Amino acid sequence: MKKYVYFFGGEKSDGDRTMKEILGGKGANLAEMINIGIPVPPGFTVTTEVCDYFNKHKNCYPDELSSAVDKNLEKLEKLLGQKFGDPKLPLLLSVRSGAAASMPGMMDTILNLGMNDEVAKGFIALTKNSRFVWDAYRRLIQMFANVALGIDSEKFEDILSREKAQKNVSLDTELSAEDMENVVKKFKKIYQTEVGEEFPQEPKKQLWLAMNAVFKSWNNVRAIKYRELNNIKNLLGTAVNIQAMVFGNMGNDCATGVAFTRDPATGEDKFFGEFLVNAQGEDVVAGTRTPQEITKQNSVAWAKDNNIPENERAKKFPSLEELMPEIYKTLFEIQRKLENHYKDMQDIEFTIQNGKLFLLQTRTGKRTAKAAIRIAIEMVKNGIISKNVAISRIQPEQLDQLLHPSFDPKEKDNVLSDGKLLTKGLPASPGAGVGKVVFSAESAISLKEQNEKNILVRPETSPEDIGGMDAAEGILTVHGGMTSHAAVVARGMGKCCIAGCGDLVINLKERYFTVQNQKIREGDFISLDGNTGEVFKGKVGTILPEFSKNFTKLMSWADDVSILGVHANADTPKDASMARKFGATGIGLCRTEHMFFGGDRIDYVRGTILSENPEERKHPLAELKKMQIKDFKGILEVMAGLPVTIRLLDPPLHEFLPEKDDENEIKKLSKIFGKTPQNIKIKIDQLHEFNPMLGHRGCRLGITFPDIYQMQIEAIIESACYLKKKGIDARPEIMIPLVGNSKEFTILEKMTREIANEIIKKSQIDLHYTVGTMIEVPRACLVANEIAKSAEFFSFGTNDLTQMGCGFSRDDSGKFLKAYVENGIYERDPFQVLDQNGIGQLVEIAVEKGRHTNPKLIIGICGEHGGEPNSIAFCHKVGLDYVSCSPYRVPIARLAVAQSALKK
Amino acid sequence: MKKYVYFFGGEKSDGDRTMKEILGGKGANLAEMINIGIPVPPGFTVTTEVCDYFNKHKNCYPDELSSAVDKNLEKLEKLLGQKFGDPKLPLLLSVRSGAAASMPGMMDTILNLGMNDEVAKGFIALTKNSRFVWDAYRRLIQMFANVALGIDSEKFEDILSREKAQKNVSLDTELSAEDMENVVKKFKKIYQTEVGEEFPQEPKKQLWLAMNAVFKSWNNVRAIKYRELNNIKNLLGTAVNIQAMVFGNMGNDCATGVAFTRDPATGEDKFFGEFLVNAQGEDVVAGTRTPQEITKQNSVAWAKDNNIPENERAKKFPSLEELMPEIYKTLFEIQRKLENHYKDMQDIEFTIQNGKLFLLQTRTGKRTAKAAIRIAIEMVKNGIISKNVAISRIQPEQLDQLLHPSFDPKEKDNVLSDGKLLTKGLPASPGAGVGKVVFSAESAISLKEQNEKNILVRPETSPEDIGGMDAAEGILTVHGGMTSHAAVVARGMGKCCIAGCGDLVINLKERYFTVQNQKIREGDFISLDGNTGEVFKGKVGTILPEFSKNFTKLMSWADDVSILGVHANADTPKDASMARKFGATGIGLCRTEHMFFGGDRIDYVRGTILSENPEERKHPLAELKKMQIKDFKGILEVMAGLPVTIRLLDPPLHEFLPEKDDENEIKKLSKIFGKTPQNIKIKIDQLHEFNPMLGHRGCRLGITFPDIYQMQIEAIIESACYLKKKGIDARPEIMIPLVGNSKEFTILEKMTREIANEIIKKSQIDLHYTVGTMIEVPRACLVANEIAKSAEFFSFGTNDLTQMGCGFSRDDSGKFLKAYVENGIYERDPFQVLDQNGIGQLVEIAVEKGRHTNPKLIIGICGEHGGEPNSIAFCHKVGLDYVSCSPYRVPIARLAVAQSALKK
Repeated sequence: MKKYVYFFGGEKSDGDRTMKEILGGKGANLAEMINIGIPVPPGFTVTTEVCDYFNKHKNCYPDELSSAVDKNLEKLEKLLGQKFGDPKLPLLLSVRSGAAASMPGMMDTILNLGMNDEVAKGFIALTKNSRFVWDAYRRLIQMFANVALGIDSEKFEDILSREKAQKNVSLDTELSAEDMENVVKKFKKIYQTEVGEEFPQEPKKQLWLAMNAVFKSWNNVRAIKYRELNNIKNLLGTAVNIQAMVFGNMGNDCATGVAFTRDPATGEDKFFGEFLVNAQGEDVVAGTRTPQEITKQNSVAWAKDNNIPENERAKKFPSLEELMPEIYKTLFEIQRKLENHYKDMQDIEFTIQNGKLFLLQTRTGKRTAKAAIRIAIEMVKNGIISKNVAISRIQPEQLDQLLHPSFDPKEKDNVLSDGKLLTKGLPASPGAGVGKVVFSAESAISLKEQNEKNILVRPETSPEDIGGMDAAEGILTVHGGMTSHAAVVARGMGKCCIAGCGDLVINLKERYFTVQNQKIREGDFISLDGNTGEVFKGKVGTILPEFSKNFTKLMSWADDVSILGVHANADTPKDASMARKFGATGIGLCRTEHMFFGGDRIDYVRGTILSENPEERKHPLAELKKMQIKDFKGILEVMAGLPVTIRLLDPPLHEFLPEKDDENEIKKLSKIFGKTPQNIKIKIDQLHEFNPMLGHRGCRLGITFPDIYQMQIEAIIESACYLKKKGIDARPEIMIPLVGNSKEFTILEKMTREIANEIIKKSQIDLHYTVGTMIEVPRACLVANEIAKSAEFFSFGTNDLTQMGCGFSRDDSGKFLKAYVENGIYERDPFQVLDQNGIGQLVEIAVEKGRHTNPKLIIGICGEHGGEPNSIAFCHKVGLDYVSCSPYRVPIARLAVAQSALKK
Repeated sequence: MKKYVYFFGGEKSDGDRTMKEILGGKGANLAEMINIGIPVPPGFTVTTEVCDYFNKHKNCYPDELSSAVDKNLEKLEKLLGQKFGDPKLPLLLSVRSGAAASMPGMMDTILNLGMNDEVAKGFIALTKNSRFVWDAYRRLIQMFANVALGIDSEKFEDILSREKAQKNVSLDTELSAEDMENVVKKFKKIYQTEVGEEFPQEPKKQLWLAMNAVFKSWNNVRAIKYRELNNIKNLLGTAVNIQAMVFGNMGNDCATGVAFTRDPATGEDKFFGEFLVNAQGEDVVAGTRTPQEITKQNSVAWAKDNNIPENERAKKFPSLEELMPEIYKTLFEIQRKLENHYKDMQDIEFTIQNGKLFLLQTRTGKRTAKAAIRIAIEMVKNGIISKNVAISRIQPEQLDQLLHPSFDPKEKDNVLSDGKLLTKGLPASPGAGVGKVVFSAESAISLKEQNEKNILVRPETSPEDIGGMDAAEGILTVHGGMTSHAAVVARGMGKCCIAGCGDLVINLKERYFTVQNQKIREGDFISLDGNTGEVFKGKVGTILPEFSKNFTKLMSWADDVSILGVHANADTPKDASMARKFGATGIGLCRTEHMFFGGDRIDYVRGTILSENPEERKHPLAELKKMQIKDFKGILEVMAGLPVTIRLLDPPLHEFLPEKDDENEIKKLSKIFGKTPQNIKIKIDQLHEFNPMLGHRGCRLGITFPDIYQMQIEAIIESACYLKKKGIDARPEIMIPLVGNSKEFTILEKMTREIANEIIKKSQIDLHYTVGTMIEVPRACLVANEIAKSAEFFSFGTNDLTQMGCGFSRDDSGKFLKAYVENGIYERDPFQVLDQNGIGQLVEIAVEKGRHTNPKLIIGICGEHGGEPNSIAFCHKVGLDYVSCSPYRVPIARLAVAQSALKK
């Protein structure tokens, strides 16, 4: 028979900390605390398997549950010498939910179960404290009605307020026993009105109704939403913890509090927490009374911050250390014991009942990235954990906090409560951005020149906007997803970006946007939180990132265990140098076309495109070559000694041409290149594509316009030879994009080697270079064995591979991808997290086929997934050699790569 | 040592008919004829392997070749008692190319090699026919100069013409021996001027130069182009046949001719051919003299056709049967023998020298589709071949001739020679179309209403043009490839279409197009040849297709051996009925959206799209449902007893909306649906997609707008139930498009079954239906095992699978795909012939994974490839259950399916 109920209490529990999956986090830790001799009120846990059964069987329980609960209840009664529902020696119970993962949004807690009219009388006789007993009774009715039956708590609070007003007092504690008895009567009436029946006097009925409520709450809207948002999957359900009550509100020798074993904001190794005398847990949270610090040191510091004189502090707000020194000592020892036992910073809850300390919960404490790193480093120093554990313990994504400016949390709370939140989009690139709204790249650049911070707001961005994006503090777009142009470029720039903000309606002509009936004009300030996707009206204060010694140390430990390398995607010497600073050991993707914008370069690019034949193209190509040589020299020099993978021209040519109705630009081109405006427009029409993603781009350009690729190859190799001559170790790797057919590759590879070898021979330089390809077309994966015959490296372009493999473009999928993730069709946005089940198979096929032909093949990934920890774990699993991501994600990738290595 | 030279002659040849690969077709058949005792001038064949060696070794020969040629030459001399270059008993030779596949464009023939000044003298002494000898000599010089050295033949013809003018005669044969001697002198002079050296007197030098020329011609531009166009691949090269000369021009007991063993136009079993007395082969072709019929029957018929009285005919143009009855008898027996030996209709060449008959060539005769079928059927009747051979012998593609109107060949020759050819595009849909140029669907419809034939000329077509395409005789587009919208729809309609005609510049505003400096205005007549892609100015006469009893018989034989079924893609009852007539045993793809155009339907579609929520959508959807029910009833009734696979809505919604600048249409919609024009424009903007192919379409619409799919499912099932009640066996299969993820499918499949079962239950009807999916997204192939858990059928949409798998859209690939095929990157346009190496792997993976989970899975293909014989063979190989194609390709597919089965 299945064990559905686990007892904890006495000498030893049925369960322990390893059993989170069936006992939930709370239940497992309660059991564990008993096992290591920490005072915990005894009780028992009904498992998550019961929740699963309950939800799968139309809210029915397994047959054997009832007797199991009875048996455990008897055991509890025996242990405590009390009886559930017995007026003479009554046992009161709490019921709390607790899943394997922390999950706000579910039904939480009902206290004082087992109280009824009879028990109240007996309990008063026993405790001689009728005010406390009536208070406990009214709390039960209120919580039970609200939490188990969904009755609005306000209805009860109103009565309490009216009672206080009548008695002319301001705190609950000032109400007398008679007042409270009166309140209980009124609460029972409300209960009857709202529920349609009397408040249940039968304690067992209370218990089962409470359990039902907990199990049902697993599937309430908020809980489902929370699991969705936090990607919590594959859990059976919640457990229910039924535990003997202890009371922090039985008098002044009682208290309740919460504490952290270290400072969760800074990570400092300092016991830290708050408590309230004569209170129950909810009073600490409610905030009507000011909680006191636990340690004297913190109490003094707190008083100083709040300008409270020491004598007033000591009298009104003494620390627990001062107020109950013995209990404090025990608590201090227990928290040390817990941290040493769990080997991690703990977040604990405790209650003191008549001078006796009970722990009600312990769990791993949440902390900032900064604190996480400090705690990990110091725990290694103190021998509590190993370096490997330290590496594994930091969430790679959390490092983002350290790499970008972010909003001051206090200021953000203020603007949120002031209703300044305009809307929410996709958090496309982290960081915080504050500035004046502009609607064009030109305006962004012009404001930047006047030293005015600005936010570029666009329907979507295109390569032409890059200058403006660079000049802006942040980018906000209406269309596009996490891997839209705006998102990718912004992440590359380490600039905050919110994309796919579909609520926005932009009027470009009159230069304003509207959202939720508010009109924001050009020049108005807005603030973007790139970490959450929130858009605020007005300015929100930001705080700057810091790079600590601890951070550097953690990174070096991570690098020591890593197997995969971490390269960066960088298109300019500036980006490359940033990447190197962040620890990249190569450039995995240098997009040559990003160099084609800005200054008069674009004119020559356009001249190249407008040419009718190779002869005409010669002049503009020669000009472009000079510029590209400058770029390549810069990047190769910054990355001296490390590989730099340069991708030949990839996007379709029309991306470089002006809009057909941009008469000024067309006139300008007409003058420069001696074509009629009509001819230029015809060219723009000719280059129009129905599906540019699937159009004339990548190596298809190389095959049809070999002279463009020739120019680029010459520029790369000439730059490298130049540097080599100067003694700088340039290591170019030439990457041919969008190969889908081995013959495409061999034709261009042959051309590349012929040109390169000729230049090297002429230069009399011993330059090593390699030739490889992006694997981004599904077909390429299927014929990887053929391509690998002559390719020296593969680099997975998983953005395009996802687009083509899944059949949806990143720019258009915004319309349905959200619904898809909500419906569980894809667990996560496949542009954010590599779709291992589908696209992952293509990657595996390509790795296997490629390595089969060419065991020396170097394989990396340069899509956006290269900086995403889950995807990195997959890359590790299938045996890639490196990942490449935007410079600002390099530290995250370094940590994720190390963690993948440790998991193996 | 490799055998490079194969002798034929005497009793037995070194080679035989099976050795085409190394002897070429001509050489193998010459050897075979010797072996079966047919009189053939002896000679020897230099193999294709020598050609391969020659081309790979910078035009050098294998060392052993020279002695092998010498040895065979000696053997020949011995056999004939003549000597090459010996003036007394001179051996003259012909040199002819001959590859394994027939290949015009290569160097063809040089006759009379071995002739020189000395030999001429000796030969005159021997033959006592100096005119003949000088004529032979001048022919050698002319052919050698032209064929081996590329000197313009005109230069020689001019001299001959001047000579004739001087002598005041009109035929070469009227020139005297002296005249001819004179001509030879002049020819030699020309030769020296043009070539820079004297005409080679050394016979062996002539021979080797001729051989060089043949081998070189393998790689001349015309030959390469021909191989490209006809997809001739993997041949080593051409062989060279060196053969003793026989002369049809030594006098009136000499003749030369060509003949077919049956009528190549009709297939009638009747010996058939032409000859000229006292002539060489080229004279028959040149057309200066009128060739005579071989049989008396044909001769009489010919005379009748040309109004030549019988006595004149008998005198001037007697048949061979009358003129040389003995020779005729022998020839007749030989042709029968050859046909019986080769078991196929033969195309033969013969020469009669001084009353002795020689065969110079036999090969399988080219024939029309009609003839091919008749010959095959009659040969089965006569026990010459089996039914299976008959089935295998017809080229499936050839059947196209029988299914569409085509141009009268004579008229077409006329317009070609009149320079009426305007340009050439892609032959996107076969047939011939003649009509007035129109530039809009509206004009096409309006002309059609006036009974005026018209040709719709568009930059490209969209679903909105369907009405106009239906009203037009043919469609001509500037953009798009073989599988563009225009091409696919036109093929579906069995209407001729030329696509991707990039030379055309259309001025839609002023309603004309220009091509090669010619302006064609709306209303001018043009003619389209959809079989060749030719566009003619003016009208060209057409001939109608015919459906013979033989055709029906052949098809029934084919069906008897077939394993795969042949379904058709049809969207209307009319198309479905055509498909059934053509022998389709089901509808493999019924595109519901094609029903959305025409009449006021499109308004309701637009109303559906413009609705802001399901409530608003209710009304237009209800209207659409009525219309869809009408369609479905029609199709299901026409196809009673056969499966009809109906695809739910597939294309992105914006395809149904008007252009944003179509103010009239927007105003109209604004009135009907009570939306402001501004709102409609915003909606059009919102629905704009960057890559519609990868956008919000297919089942993605079903997930996000379930009410649209619900309406369609209801319409299908209600229609089927209605028919069932009437006793009509409706067999709907509901197909969910664009599935890439098993959960997409399960969500929609569940919805489908719930709706369907509810309706069936209500109707109290025992309706069987199935639910399956298109497999057209690469990812779907990878997770086919998951999808097959609940799918009853798969249908490969290889158009989209190719687009996504190869990463190029059919609408955009025109810009590079031609270059790709020319460069051998893809052997064939992958939209025409399934790319087995790449996309084929995806198909195989999906079949294997799908069947592994669900062995009962029915698998078909409904992409354009379903009607293409090579792709059909692949479908057979990987084990599909059926192919589906446009109605007009059904017979082709039926034959191809049968041939695939026989190959197994």
